[in-house]
Amino acid sequence: MAAPEIEQLIQLLSKLPGLGPRSARRAALHLVKKKDILMTPLSQALVRVEHNVKNCSVCGNIDASDPCAICTDMRRDDSIICVVQDVADLWALERSATFKGRYHVLGGTLSALDGIGPEDLKIDTLVGRASNQAVKEVILATSATVDGQTTAHYIADCLADCNVKISGLAHGVPVGGELDYLDDGTLSAALSARRVME
Amino acid sequence: MAAPEIEQLIQLLSKLPGLGPRSARRAALHLVKKKDILMTPLSQALVRVEHNVKNCSVCGNIDASDPCAICTDMRRDDSIICVVQDVADLWALERSATFKGRYHVLGGTLSALDGIGPEDLKIDTLVGRASNQAVKEVILATSATVDGQTTAHYIADCLADCNVKISGLAHGVPVGGELDYLDDGTLSAALSARRVME
Repeated sequence: MAAPEIEQLIQLLSKLPGLGPRSARRAALHLVKKKDILMTPLSQALVRVEHNVKNCSVCGNIDASDPCAICTDMRRDDSIICVVQDVADLWALERSATFKGRYHVLGGTLSALDGIGPEDLKIDTLVGRASNQAVKEVILATSATVDGQTTAHYIADCLADCNVKISGLAHGVPVGGELDYLDDGTLSAALSARRVME
Repeated sequence: MAAPEIEQLIQLLSKLPGLGPRSARRAALHLVKKKDILMTPLSQALVRVEHNVKNCSVCGNIDASDPCAICTDMRRDDSIICVVQDVADLWALERSATFKGRYHVLGGTLSALDGIGPEDLKIDTLVGRASNQAVKEVILATSATVDGQTTAHYIADCLADCNVKISGLAHGVPVGGELDYLDDGTLSAALSARRVME
């Protein structure tokens, strides 16, 4: 219907998460209309990311340099590694600006349904890093889902011989959350992990 | 936080309609992960659209050729012009595959609030086209909004001297629509435009 160039752009845009065929069409039209201020910069930005961004061979983060900026930052603590499923989780933790150690990106979770086994995740390299004398603690910050927790337990077993402290994120009431809207599992976790007010 | 290349990509993606900062971040990560099957094709598609797609000087449609494929299609009816606000509306009408005449894209509606006057829309060229002897009818297919209908009335005035039939889209119950969910305006329009069942 539209020119094949545009149809192809729509088809590719519709593969992005959060965009369906209809919103991809709207986005493509918006791009054509804002050629100079949006389409050209976007195509240049894509080429730049394509050529410059790579996976960090140490932690699995994505960055313009390998090892990445977090792995090479001298101010960060070498003794503690935070294990996350995905780069998005690493970014979320970085936004919270609480953690000052190193990261390790697994690249997913174990999942029998999706056929993802331990060999598909970067567990070997994690065990290698954790075996280093300098590492004192590994935080397993996988999601609080069944797959995430299964993965955390599996990794805890793998690290058993590494002489590191293994910890997980606390469960409880989200900051700003109302009790009424919370599920039973979270409430019961928050109740059993209750703390003394000072 | 992430590499500046990625931050810039996220920032540009978040300007697309339907994507906010959070979904743009998700889209950028998705692009980096699917480098070969999505990011490279997308950047190539953008460059292709950037270089090949232009506005049709006759009707205002976007296409790889000027005049566009619709304006040059010999099988289409020269005697009828359908006036739409935007290329998206033209595409929507083409999908319905009912209309076999030519189009004219206005590029928006009159809007006192947004400061869009008649000189900002392609009304002059429409009057020029409608003055052609071959043209018998102009369908004003602007939106059924206040601005859309104001624009339609304004254009109808401009075309008064052109010796063409001027028509508008029918209002009524959308096909598949339930009466209970329809607004009063639509129901009253559908009732007064009721037709004899055969």
